[in-house]
Amino acid sequence: MTRNRQLHLGAFMRPVSLHTGAWRFPGAWPDANFNFAHLKHCVQLLEKARFDAFFMADHLAVLNMPIDALKRSHTATSFEPFTLLSALAAVTERIGLVATASTTFEEPWHIARRFASLDHLSNGRAGWNLVTTSNPEAARNFGRDTHMEHDERYRRALEFHAVVTGLWDSWADDAFVREVDTGLYFDPAKLHVLDHRGDYFSVRGPLNIARPVQGWPVVVQAGSSEAGMQVAAQTADAVFTAQPTLAAGQRFYANLKSRLEHFGRTRDDLKILPGVFVVVGETREEAAAQRARLDTFVHYDSGIASLSIALGHDVSGYDPDGPLPEIPESNASRSARQRVVDWAREEKLTIRELAQRVGGYSGLEMVGTARDIADQMEQWLVEEGSDGFNIMFPWLPAGVEDFVGKVVPELQRRGIFRREYTGTTLRDHLGLRRPLNRFFV
Amino acid sequence: MTRNRQLHLGAFMRPVSLHTGAWRFPGAWPDANFNFAHLKHCVQLLEKARFDAFFMADHLAVLNMPIDALKRSHTATSFEPFTLLSALAAVTERIGLVATASTTFEEPWHIARRFASLDHLSNGRAGWNLVTTSNPEAARNFGRDTHMEHDERYRRALEFHAVVTGLWDSWADDAFVREVDTGLYFDPAKLHVLDHRGDYFSVRGPLNIARPVQGWPVVVQAGSSEAGMQVAAQTADAVFTAQPTLAAGQRFYANLKSRLEHFGRTRDDLKILPGVFVVVGETREEAAAQRARLDTFVHYDSGIASLSIALGHDVSGYDPDGPLPEIPESNASRSARQRVVDWAREEKLTIRELAQRVGGYSGLEMVGTARDIADQMEQWLVEEGSDGFNIMFPWLPAGVEDFVGKVVPELQRRGIFRREYTGTTLRDHLGLRRPLNRFFV
Repeated sequence: MTRNRQLHLGAFMRPVSLHTGAWRFPGAWPDANFNFAHLKHCVQLLEKARFDAFFMADHLAVLNMPIDALKRSHTATSFEPFTLLSALAAVTERIGLVATASTTFEEPWHIARRFASLDHLSNGRAGWNLVTTSNPEAARNFGRDTHMEHDERYRRALEFHAVVTGLWDSWADDAFVREVDTGLYFDPAKLHVLDHRGDYFSVRGPLNIARPVQGWPVVVQAGSSEAGMQVAAQTADAVFTAQPTLAAGQRFYANLKSRLEHFGRTRDDLKILPGVFVVVGETREEAAAQRARLDTFVHYDSGIASLSIALGHDVSGYDPDGPLPEIPESNASRSARQRVVDWAREEKLTIRELAQRVGGYSGLEMVGTARDIADQMEQWLVEEGSDGFNIMFPWLPAGVEDFVGKVVPELQRRGIFRREYTGTTLRDHLGLRRPLNRFFV
Repeated sequence: MTRNRQLHLGAFMRPVSLHTGAWRFPGAWPDANFNFAHLKHCVQLLEKARFDAFFMADHLAVLNMPIDALKRSHTATSFEPFTLLSALAAVTERIGLVATASTTFEEPWHIARRFASLDHLSNGRAGWNLVTTSNPEAARNFGRDTHMEHDERYRRALEFHAVVTGLWDSWADDAFVREVDTGLYFDPAKLHVLDHRGDYFSVRGPLNIARPVQGWPVVVQAGSSEAGMQVAAQTADAVFTAQPTLAAGQRFYANLKSRLEHFGRTRDDLKILPGVFVVVGETREEAAAQRARLDTFVHYDSGIASLSIALGHDVSGYDPDGPLPEIPESNASRSARQRVVDWAREEKLTIRELAQRVGGYSGLEMVGTARDIADQMEQWLVEEGSDGFNIMFPWLPAGVEDFVGKVVPELQRRGIFRREYTGTTLRDHLGLRRPLNRFFV
């Protein structure tokens, strides 16, 4: 009997794509984003449901949006990832913990060391969401008035990754012998000095921490540009991606997986997990009603700013309760703009309704009963749209409770999601090999 | 009835001054430095004993010592401070958590954010041990072949501190209103954009995290040079210092406290806590025997390297079991050198014994019964040698268990150490005021 392909599930709980009206939903925790007890509760639920990982997105600036929208957003503040995930490591046992860290605004030594430390503290559950940071506001918090250009950020990221993995390999896995009788603490033949000198970094090493439990913590990326996909094919263990439809997901999946062989990697060496926003109800009607209700909590001031950005045209002067008029051409992304216009026309939405839709969340979503959602997830898995998903919950805590209480059991019943963890590390959960030490094979 | 002055107690558990033979002592945990369960056990014991803080020293390189000494040291690796202390925050409730971070090799934005995050996660228990990093090996891990010179490091540290505290004040304490009905998450009038432009840093702000629970996390420093003391007088809430004798401690205490008024601060605004190595026994003889036994676990190869450094002269060629011969003048610190020579002469130590003493630990120590140790601590407190101590334990876990089981009750009986915490934050424990927000008074 062949085992079904298995879904991998991550949970995504920080700003981007988390619905901006979520904090106002009846019964929701308005400070869920910034209350340790609340986050601990949610992550412990996810662990009971055998999720692969909890994923902490991050930004190195207050989000770049007009103050009238920002002041209505629960995303202005959050915990810093290393501190939050380390605290969560102490109150969980199995779930993976993925922290975002930027290759543009950090030093390789610090990043290598913090992830190694988190990996030891969590007994092999650390993941690094490697980002190059596209927000130009971030540069101004680090003494730079202009942001590094896109391709240069990726060249720097590749070298950064090489330095970090080289530092992780500073010590052989069996370097620390701790022989009390002879007084030998480590075997000096099992210590490697990296002495890296490259275009962007000079880093001597060795790292002052033992090799991580996983060899290397799991490396996650989200870049979907050409440069981003090449870096991912070369270095990522998992990719979190935004794909609006199954067809788009399949194209991305086929494209990225086909790039692996060139780097001597197999298709199983990289897992692709699109983000999906899930609203589950007892009936389809209930789920749809909840989803629609959620949009009503997006404040008009906030929604209209997002809508104007999406259209590339200020629409705040029109009647909120009238239809969307013809909008002139603009610099906005043409496909994103057309999608918004299509919604307005096809669903006969008022400007207010459209603003609340766009200002809330408008990426991939699955709304329906547990069976409906399981059907869609199974289809994505079977038809090679993904290896799993990075789940976004509509509000906390009920969004998590509904998903783990209703959808997860249905996925387990179908044999496409684990009932128990079969390993202890995040690499185990994701079905990834432990990297050999490049200096001590 | 006036209340006695109260001792403040911190625990110091990382490399420098932790006895290098500790990991070999019978019953000791050889990996105590790098085993989360062990550290958690010790810190929970310290919290039960009502310690003010647990202090995590740190280095940004493998310690700079000859490989023959390094390979015998348990200090080559350790957890990274932010990750370790955040994990400890999740399994403790009251004890302060002080992490070391360098103003020379970090960015103010990251440091402001991580300490703010740790302070929120721990409900007001974070402290920043602000160091300028004197180890030249560290520079080579951050792309610099030469280390920044001493006074420039301190000028940079002062500006770094100003930026970090400015970022901590980005939001008024009551900025986040989270009004579900109106949809207002924060009051934009209570957000301040720092826009710092100085000699070393340009940082726009605001910080994307609410003002810390303590207003500002506690700032700790250890610099004892002229520049270091001026920076401490201006910015530190507590100073950890190495003072070999009560007389030296009194001079340092009077000197540093006298500098505070110039900066508009009172003598109570800065607490001085010398490091002290404590060995407690049922009798003086037992304690002295344990202390002597500990030195026997310093490997000769390691000790002789330390002794040669202390003397500024290679003494590895002499008979280990013979006396110390006359040593020519050298570049070594004259007072440190003389102290070592005096030990050899006065106690008639062999080169081996001397090497083991110097290679183990040779700063301030208190060795005796609980009463003896309490007597000395009380004397330092009453005679203004210190406001308390930063305790170093001879080996783990017994060193902690002995101190909290024997010495702490004796200090409590004398009314010079708390029986219960009277506040919840590290500032409360240390008797420090909560800083006002400079932008929103």
